[in-house]
Amino acid sequence: MLMDHQQRTKEMIKEIDRALMKYVERGKHEKLIKAMRHYPEAGGKRMRPVMAMLVAEAVGKRGKEALPFGCSLELIHNFTLVHDDVIDKDPVRRGRPAVHIAFDEPTAIIAGDALFAIAYDVLAMTDVDGERLRRLLRAVSDTVFLVAEGQQMDVDNEDRPTVSKEEYLDMVEKKTAVLFACAAEGGAIIGHGTEKQITDMKEYARLLGIGFQIWDDVLGIKGDAKKVGKPIGSDIRNGKRTLIVLDALERLEKDQRKHVLTDALGNEKATDEQVRAAIKLLEDIGSIENARQFALDYAKRAKDLLSCLKDSEEKEMLREMVDYAVGREL
Amino acid sequence: MLMDHQQRTKEMIKEIDRALMKYVERGKHEKLIKAMRHYPEAGGKRMRPVMAMLVAEAVGKRGKEALPFGCSLELIHNFTLVHDDVIDKDPVRRGRPAVHIAFDEPTAIIAGDALFAIAYDVLAMTDVDGERLRRLLRAVSDTVFLVAEGQQMDVDNEDRPTVSKEEYLDMVEKKTAVLFACAAEGGAIIGHGTEKQITDMKEYARLLGIGFQIWDDVLGIKGDAKKVGKPIGSDIRNGKRTLIVLDALERLEKDQRKHVLTDALGNEKATDEQVRAAIKLLEDIGSIENARQFALDYAKRAKDLLSCLKDSEEKEMLREMVDYAVGREL
Repeated sequence: MLMDHQQRTKEMIKEIDRALMKYVERGKHEKLIKAMRHYPEAGGKRMRPVMAMLVAEAVGKRGKEALPFGCSLELIHNFTLVHDDVIDKDPVRRGRPAVHIAFDEPTAIIAGDALFAIAYDVLAMTDVDGERLRRLLRAVSDTVFLVAEGQQMDVDNEDRPTVSKEEYLDMVEKKTAVLFACAAEGGAIIGHGTEKQITDMKEYARLLGIGFQIWDDVLGIKGDAKKVGKPIGSDIRNGKRTLIVLDALERLEKDQRKHVLTDALGNEKATDEQVRAAIKLLEDIGSIENARQFALDYAKRAKDLLSCLKDSEEKEMLREMVDYAVGREL
Repeated sequence: MLMDHQQRTKEMIKEIDRALMKYVERGKHEKLIKAMRHYPEAGGKRMRPVMAMLVAEAVGKRGKEALPFGCSLELIHNFTLVHDDVIDKDPVRRGRPAVHIAFDEPTAIIAGDALFAIAYDVLAMTDVDGERLRRLLRAVSDTVFLVAEGQQMDVDNEDRPTVSKEEYLDMVEKKTAVLFACAAEGGAIIGHGTEKQITDMKEYARLLGIGFQIWDDVLGIKGDAKKVGKPIGSDIRNGKRTLIVLDALERLEKDQRKHVLTDALGNEKATDEQVRAAIKLLEDIGSIENARQFALDYAKRAKDLLSCLKDSEEKEMLREMVDYAVGREL
């Protein structure tokens, strides 16, 4: 990324952070406010609001006007994280105790609901005409419903012996990609973009979102432990069924090496040696490279859609965002 | 209630039920759909949508136009019930297993979130101009935030040795009254009412909502077991700190009869005789009559506000709704 783009992104994030902190400082209940603030104040890349603002600027020089909408999506993103952590019983998030650990489960459920309510209140502040507001409202609500569906699929998949690659990708689309898609779609609506721009930008972000998650799966296996922020191989020991693992299980169906993977997969007591052997097998049979190529293909298709925009600094930044989503930290 | 009013209410409820069932039949995930449908299909008095429609009709002959908005509030009401039951670990609701029992806790949390998302999607269907839609969106979001705050107060109060009557009423306002207030306010907005009508109808419903809850507390102590649907005295054995109990604890501060109440309060093993003695004490010191008068006063003030409406059948029905909220089944 160009240095001045990096600097500009940093400044956007600062502006978004300030707005977010103002929005969650709401009501009279100290504990509830603290619980709502817990994740947003722990930082984050704010990819969704940054994307919404860049798109609105690129299509119609209305980046500023997309700030509340972008924050609304960030609040929704945070609300889903709070509830997901309760559901998955994850004790840690962004290096801090999860909300349900730092407070308690009832407070986490309520804080999530409250963040969701605030998100819609912030959405209502958007400086657009009423019919565009109605369209944004529908887009956001449809999106959150799909995110809920994706989360339910994720919960149910844990009890199933096998999951197909198609089912996994459907879940990734709902849990991750649709919120990105909504950010870019909304940005284009707020920027008074053409119907083609609205459609193309939504698809751009959907592809980016899927690529982002698959790249995350690759990082979970191959990334630098320090940069990724969790010990390499933990995805193997946790038995996380990523695209890589699902692909490998298919390829190894009748292969006598299969046990090298299954011995380590979901085995919290697996030795480092066993985990390394499993990763080597994933490499040897091409499952890691397959996922990598899959993500890169999505990234390329996402970039192609940027042709609906006139050349601008923001267009460049949206291109760089794809490179960050698919390509980071490996 | 007049017979034809009863009939008309029944028909409104049927129409609301049909719409609700259509709205929750959403997405591809069977289990999630069933979980979302679980409470709405178990029936209910649909007081919030009925109120919204009556108000919209009374101010501007736009009752039909308030149907989606009313359903949106009913979905929100149901979403809060689903999450409340998870939080309070209540196993039964409307005579059926609670969602988190019939399914599981993760599904209950997700189904609540999904109902909330659908509620906003339904709101977006409202046939009003964009600026009125924006106003409805803000009213609904503000309301849900207050409901969350009320629920958090309720959770926190359980760990506190004492709660004042003022704190209890503040909680009742947030947990119950604000959603009624939003129903009437929204109905008046959708009906193109004057600012005075919007303000007065909101206040009418807020007063009705508080009266409704206090009357519920009276029924919990004095009501006919069959009609109320739970054994009389269960509020005493569960140690529920209602206005009646809080008032009594204040009055009995230095009274040697205090133990008659505290022996039974929150004591699941209290004998029927002990519970009867406690109820008799609540009567003797006037705490029950005090709550009754309190609710009746709120009811009177609610009815007075109806003077902002021209005479109509709907205005009569809104008056009867107060009599139902404060006066039912004793």
